[in-house]
Amino acid sequence: MEPDVGGSSPPSCTKKMNKKNFRPSSDLPAGFADREQEELLIRDLLISNIKQIMIKYGFQYLETPSFEYTESIGKYLPDKDRPSEGVFSFEDEKKWLSLRYDLTAPLARYAAKNFDTIPKPFKRFQLGTVWRNEKPGPGRFREFLQFDADYIGTSNLFADSELCFLISEILTFCGLEKKQFIIKISNRKLSKGLLEKININDITKQAITLRAIDKLDRVGLEGVSYLLGKGRKDKSGDFTKGAELEEFQIKEIINFLEIKDLSENNFERISKIADNNKIINEGIDELKLMQKYFSLFGFENYIFDPTVVRGLEYYTGPIFEANLTFGVLNNKGQEIEFGSIGGGGRYDDLVKKFNNQDCPSTGVSIGLDRLIFALMQKNKIEIEKKLLILICVFNDKYMDFYLKILNKLRSNNISAEIYSGTSNIKSQFKYADKKGCDYVILCGDDEVSKNLITIKNLNIGKKLSNNIQNRDEWKESAVSQKTVKFDQLLNELKK
Amino acid sequence: MEPDVGGSSPPSCTKKMNKKNFRPSSDLPAGFADREQEELLIRDLLISNIKQIMIKYGFQYLETPSFEYTESIGKYLPDKDRPSEGVFSFEDEKKWLSLRYDLTAPLARYAAKNFDTIPKPFKRFQLGTVWRNEKPGPGRFREFLQFDADYIGTSNLFADSELCFLISEILTFCGLEKKQFIIKISNRKLSKGLLEKININDITKQAITLRAIDKLDRVGLEGVSYLLGKGRKDKSGDFTKGAELEEFQIKEIINFLEIKDLSENNFERISKIADNNKIINEGIDELKLMQKYFSLFGFENYIFDPTVVRGLEYYTGPIFEANLTFGVLNNKGQEIEFGSIGGGGRYDDLVKKFNNQDCPSTGVSIGLDRLIFALMQKNKIEIEKKLLILICVFNDKYMDFYLKILNKLRSNNISAEIYSGTSNIKSQFKYADKKGCDYVILCGDDEVSKNLITIKNLNIGKKLSNNIQNRDEWKESAVSQKTVKFDQLLNELKK
Repeated sequence: MEPDVGGSSPPSCTKKMNKKNFRPSSDLPAGFADREQEELLIRDLLISNIKQIMIKYGFQYLETPSFEYTESIGKYLPDKDRPSEGVFSFEDEKKWLSLRYDLTAPLARYAAKNFDTIPKPFKRFQLGTVWRNEKPGPGRFREFLQFDADYIGTSNLFADSELCFLISEILTFCGLEKKQFIIKISNRKLSKGLLEKININDITKQAITLRAIDKLDRVGLEGVSYLLGKGRKDKSGDFTKGAELEEFQIKEIINFLEIKDLSENNFERISKIADNNKIINEGIDELKLMQKYFSLFGFENYIFDPTVVRGLEYYTGPIFEANLTFGVLNNKGQEIEFGSIGGGGRYDDLVKKFNNQDCPSTGVSIGLDRLIFALMQKNKIEIEKKLLILICVFNDKYMDFYLKILNKLRSNNISAEIYSGTSNIKSQFKYADKKGCDYVILCGDDEVSKNLITIKNLNIGKKLSNNIQNRDEWKESAVSQKTVKFDQLLNELKK
Repeated sequence: MEPDVGGSSPPSCTKKMNKKNFRPSSDLPAGFADREQEELLIRDLLISNIKQIMIKYGFQYLETPSFEYTESIGKYLPDKDRPSEGVFSFEDEKKWLSLRYDLTAPLARYAAKNFDTIPKPFKRFQLGTVWRNEKPGPGRFREFLQFDADYIGTSNLFADSELCFLISEILTFCGLEKKQFIIKISNRKLSKGLLEKININDITKQAITLRAIDKLDRVGLEGVSYLLGKGRKDKSGDFTKGAELEEFQIKEIINFLEIKDLSENNFERISKIADNNKIINEGIDELKLMQKYFSLFGFENYIFDPTVVRGLEYYTGPIFEANLTFGVLNNKGQEIEFGSIGGGGRYDDLVKKFNNQDCPSTGVSIGLDRLIFALMQKNKIEIEKKLLILICVFNDKYMDFYLKILNKLRSNNISAEIYSGTSNIKSQFKYADKKGCDYVILCGDDEVSKNLITIKNLNIGKKLSNNIQNRDEWKESAVSQKTVKFDQLLNELKK
């Protein structure tokens, strides 16, 4: 019963798979991971609570599909300097489909499609997996979970300001203290105006220049100046070709980057650099307005940082990112440069691409997997451990008795199971151990005939269990074991 | 700032997108859908509760990634008679990757990969999207959400029996009455033995025969007999070629299919057809054992139905499916043949493919989107409607006052927002209407100067709102409006 494979199946692969006794790989492709109970329960708790916050803020819940027409989600990916990067795409009945690489481009498509019926501003939140067909590497995933909140159809910077406060509320809710994170804020208009002012008009040159600026945290001011000039050799000896700007251009940019913290005085310094450049001054005014809103929110955990550029290309105004201020360890216990766990910004031209109608918008995205990775290291989220009970099977003829116990426990919302394998009691103990059960319930001839239940607390007796050969030995060795009347079962567990 | 597109991007598409003033489509590819708040909130509630049930039953939470090596998930899709069916696959560094088409094949891969560390039986649950690259059609989706529970590494039919009871508990929990659904149960060994007994040994012929049997509900006994013979013409005139079996073979199969309900007597009828065929008799014995366990669970909402075949090819033993017994309407209000909303069965050979170790397994899958579609028609799940409040902006200079109100509401866990667009009060009312706000808060000069808040109940005043031109008219027309002291805000809302 092996039917033909459909037209879309990969021919080279199918040929191999059709071979008799073919043994498929049980490995995962690079950049993908299995996730297990502890992480998933923490994630669920976090998601459920972030959703509550979103609803409290008046965002509406939306879900767009994984696939979009490739043309609809455009080409806005950052860092296109590696050849294998991009999106996962298929040809489908002569049109190309792609897996979304973020939740913003699909939202713009949704907003354009439903332009007349959505309220404006349209405030929506979405949780979803996004995919990047990047060159996989250690700790570099090709699918990850994002949680987004956006305002579609408003130029009001109150929206942008509220989003910064929202990230802060979410991170605080996750258990982080104020000193453990900071929201960095800038404005694309600053870098845009700067490029205009120093006559960098070529699109490719602009992209290389912004990419160099974006690397400030990693390579420092000197590194950036090399990347703006002829190029830079890194520790491994790899050479990155530079933007080949002129000396005066590099100087202006470095001058600009030296202003790390935009306090009141530094706004003036930027104004001076702007030298009446309209775009830069617009950018500064916008940041000052946001500053006003921040103070109304009582929000202080931010810094204006003009060196923040953000990767995605569609940003047009204020941009922001959330950074953890503590060290995060990798799997080898080494502290790593963790980068931001979320960010966003204003994208005024994205919806317009579809319907040619003005629709200024802004949004933020939280990288949920990364956030959880960091939170788990700090033990910031605790999951209430639920009791788990295994009912051992001494003899199939007592299944009616075991089911009576099972139903009693489950109907009282206690997690319980009857051993569902085919092995002997010793293996059943091992199973309970491996699974992390808190109790086993042991009912043989003695108990069943007298309507009694023997309960063994594994958390106490765990260390003894490996050397036990039969039930009698078990009984003798056990200090943590108790036999009670059927009716006393729940009371006994409550102790 | 438009960098080069990565190597994986579709060339024909990119060319088009690079054209100046290119306007992308805001449509979705066929077979994909946007989902909105009402459905998503119902889905969340359902998911959260099913997860609780899973944990109560002792299943462990797992998540495997969307992608697997194509060779790892094999070719087990049903109904391969249409050419464009199959999976979504990519070539990646000389190996093929595919999006999972179910959660079972990836689980088998996971179990093989972690064979020595998982407890056996390994009871796991997983929620996840699956993709089918099928020919899209009305109501035929190419991605959908599945909720699975499986036992890996046990031949104990207690596991299969408990899964049937589990589906029943979940559906009951969803608000369905016992008479609104039924679990149909059969065993692959019945059809396997039957084919052996009547000498249908050719794999392709077996597949066509089983596919014909699977159509019984749609085409009836006569239709099946044509499909087993030369073929069948449907209402539209389309001809489906048949299995071209011999007369005696068709007769035996029809004879078998006539036994719709396997009550005690009918087990005997099947035994008679089996005529000492070992496989059929094994199948019957297994069903009888499950019957015993069902009675211990007090589970009655099932029927043994030997005509149930199930699509996926990897099943080897008991199979089961959950069917709704009420009519479901399509978007045009027509009652449609809805099919099963979940099902599963035993697959004893799937893990073995990877590691050549015996690992009998069984599992069940619930089609969550379909279930929710049906439940929404019956209003079976009710979501508690949360209050939503819009604070109107009369003048930016009062933003500090509006934020004081906002913080008060949100810190009391009431969903509220300050209007974040740039339009006038009339548009703000319309916005509140469109969004379904319950209240608007109106504070102009009068209120702010006296620390008062005007609250308008929109659920009462909704009908009036369209004809109002300014705030004074609004105030006059409104019977549902009240001005209170700032401190009285929460008390007023509680009324």
